Amino acid sequence: MKVRILVSFKDSVLDPQGQTVKNALHTLGYAAVKDVRQGKVFELDLAGISRAEADRLVPEMAGKVLANPIIEKFTWQIVEE
Amino acid sequence: MKVRILVSFKDSVLDPQGQTVKNALHTLGYAAVKDVRQGKVFELDLAGISRAEADRLVPEMAGKVLANPIIEKFTWQIVEE
Repeated sequence: MKVRILVSFKDSVLDPQGQTVKNALHTLGYAAVKDVRQGKVFELDLAGISRAEADRLVPEMAGKVLANPIIEKFTWQIVEE
Repeated sequence: MKVRILVSFKDSVLDPQGQTVKNALHTLGYAAVKDVRQGKVFELDLAGISRAEADRLVPEMAGKVLANPIIEKFTWQIVEE
């Protein structure tokens, strides 16, 4: 089973990397870009577990290891059964 | 319009960050994790452009600024019209 976990800063947290990317895009003439937020994506290959176990394990791993729950939020989805 | 761009290493490129995360998860007892690939996600807020313009601009920005086409690949999708 393949799962994808997206980790990004909470909306209330400043994202200087995203700002830098936005400025770079503006400099190149992409004026349509109003905002950029940058985050991380993790693709995990899980073997030998059921859908129910994934529902339990993935948020646990994301909250413990992949994201810092103080300043980051995460979403996840199964991309391949 | 909100678009999400996922940038990750090509499959043929080693991903030491992903390996480190995998090892950390194993150390914590998550043995079901067979592989981890880490990448970047960009969420762009685009204003005043049509769907057709986005289809042209987003891959251009991703290939020029957000991803290094030598070692990285990207996918993108519209998450909010």
